[in-house]
Amino acid sequence: MNELQERIVKDGKYLGNGILKVDSFVNHQVDPNLMDACGREFAKRFANTGATKILTAEISGIAPALTTAIHMKLPVVYARKTKPITMPDQVYLTLAPSHTKGRMVELIVSPEYLANNEKVLIIDDFLASGQTILGLVRLTEASGSTVVGIGTLIEKSFEGGRDALSSLNIPIESIACIKSMDEGKIEFVDS
Amino acid sequence: MNELQERIVKDGKYLGNGILKVDSFVNHQVDPNLMDACGREFAKRFANTGATKILTAEISGIAPALTTAIHMKLPVVYARKTKPITMPDQVYLTLAPSHTKGRMVELIVSPEYLANNEKVLIIDDFLASGQTILGLVRLTEASGSTVVGIGTLIEKSFEGGRDALSSLNIPIESIACIKSMDEGKIEFVDS
Repeated sequence: MNELQERIVKDGKYLGNGILKVDSFVNHQVDPNLMDACGREFAKRFANTGATKILTAEISGIAPALTTAIHMKLPVVYARKTKPITMPDQVYLTLAPSHTKGRMVELIVSPEYLANNEKVLIIDDFLASGQTILGLVRLTEASGSTVVGIGTLIEKSFEGGRDALSSLNIPIESIACIKSMDEGKIEFVDS
Repeated sequence: MNELQERIVKDGKYLGNGILKVDSFVNHQVDPNLMDACGREFAKRFANTGATKILTAEISGIAPALTTAIHMKLPVVYARKTKPITMPDQVYLTLAPSHTKGRMVELIVSPEYLANNEKVLIIDDFLASGQTILGLVRLTEASGSTVVGIGTLIEKSFEGGRDALSSLNIPIESIACIKSMDEGKIEFVDS
């Protein structure tokens, strides 16, 4: 098991309904050493993609995307869920269903920071149904750029996200891929 | 001028009404090298505070708080503005006026990650009126912990935040302290 998998086993809590609580090291409190290690790992796995920019979604994608950006020396953009007053009127906007919020959320990126012909690496905390990441893919394609890879800290393989993204034909990497959490026992793919 | 000040002069945009747009390197797109340098600088300035935990507010405080946490090897907690389903029913919650949103926002921290007797270093992107940071101070004190320092990337000294925080008698550090933006010309304290 890698460091993230070990931490999930130690400190993750299965709350039922497919929800894994990792608030003590990913989503509310962040372990900076672990997050830095995950960023280094993504940088290694995506070293050959030619990525020119990293894209994530606020809020909990910011930490892993930033540490990956530090190791890859690439700028990182986080899609906003509400449009700040500093953003221009014309934006790229898409809707994605939020699993944890039970409603649609907006994902908004300013054209100032997602221009033509970028090679975009998408990094997020979770890959579950893949809907948030598909939203980020739509924003990228709307801007005339191309997604070259997708990396998530934790994949829940039983929620079908990888299948939803497979037609993109790009590398999809997760650091901890969970195949089941039945009765609270967390089992990983390849472990 | 330091690296952040130079970048503000080069890429910051004054939008009027006291609003400085730094979306190209802090708030929407993040320059990871600059953010890492700012984290290293905070770690140096607060090395002697005995801090045991870093506290910030989502969303745009996460990046500087995380890089500071990496350099100080301390856990970082970001106060949430909406309560996620993974959080327990009993939380620390306070209200703070949002300058950019024009309304009160909630700041919520789980007691799981802000326990008694922590020495808390607060890191955020902006120090303007100081109201968000005062909210974080209230959460810290409600938990029985103590704030030992406050660091912000950009201070707008003319908005009075430092005065609002002065009764705390703790170190307050900003990497770029702006004394005026009249007619869009950005002038720093000590430059």
